[in-house]
Amino acid sequence: MKLGRLNHIGVVTPSIPDSIDHWRDVMGATSICEPFDLPAQGVKVCFVDTPADGPTNGTQIELIEPLGEDSPIHGFLAKNPLGGQHHICFEVPDIHSAKSEFEAMGKRVLGEPRIGAHGTLIFFVHPKDMGGMLTEIMETPKDH
Amino acid sequence: MKLGRLNHIGVVTPSIPDSIDHWRDVMGATSICEPFDLPAQGVKVCFVDTPADGPTNGTQIELIEPLGEDSPIHGFLAKNPLGGQHHICFEVPDIHSAKSEFEAMGKRVLGEPRIGAHGTLIFFVHPKDMGGMLTEIMETPKDH
Repeated sequence: MKLGRLNHIGVVTPSIPDSIDHWRDVMGATSICEPFDLPAQGVKVCFVDTPADGPTNGTQIELIEPLGEDSPIHGFLAKNPLGGQHHICFEVPDIHSAKSEFEAMGKRVLGEPRIGAHGTLIFFVHPKDMGGMLTEIMETPKDH
Repeated sequence: MKLGRLNHIGVVTPSIPDSIDHWRDVMGATSICEPFDLPAQGVKVCFVDTPADGPTNGTQIELIEPLGEDSPIHGFLAKNPLGGQHHICFEVPDIHSAKSEFEAMGKRVLGEPRIGAHGTLIFFVHPKDMGGMLTEIMETPKDH
């Protein structure tokens, strides 16, 4: 596998509206997408663009808020009430071959590829196999 | 302040050589800089480049290993023995005006600007004022 573009950093927050205030008013972000629900994953998300030289945006900040009582990120917020860095996400050209490569290296892929926040297939790799970092792998959107 | 380029994500590791193996062999990084010591900050660092469209590299991964017994990141490793995400770093055109702006907003800037890993002035802002994220602000290198 060849390292792909760092698509986004996932940041957990107890409140996307409060985080939007932070990124707009404190950090000076000028391009913040509309928040939306990902009910299958139990989260609400919102992407903040960062500037870059090229035609695609820079690495995005993905704000993640729990959606529903069974959201998998309640535990993270219980440990980190203010929120914080949650995962990093790299692009690959083909999600299924990436999954095979990680598994061949003995890395624990968490579940089958499923549709992620950018509408393409994604999977996560266990942080204990990835230097303590929950690592998301996503197929590059076709419009990039 | 206007949001600047996401220069790097700081990732703590108990061993830079092991992390280099991870980023090269598992993640497929092809551009990994030579590690070097930052004795004034009690860390050894190593930058991993990620791909991007433009003339500058994508957001880098900064691997950080403790240097010396007083390294400020021993505490992080005590809590996270495998390592993990530690901070995010954004560029600004002028470090001193950025510091004034953060302070005017009541954000705790941790110490005076000092030379960081890219040779330009940097400071950190307290994670409790930044949505749980230790946030580094660095002056854009002149060669960018």
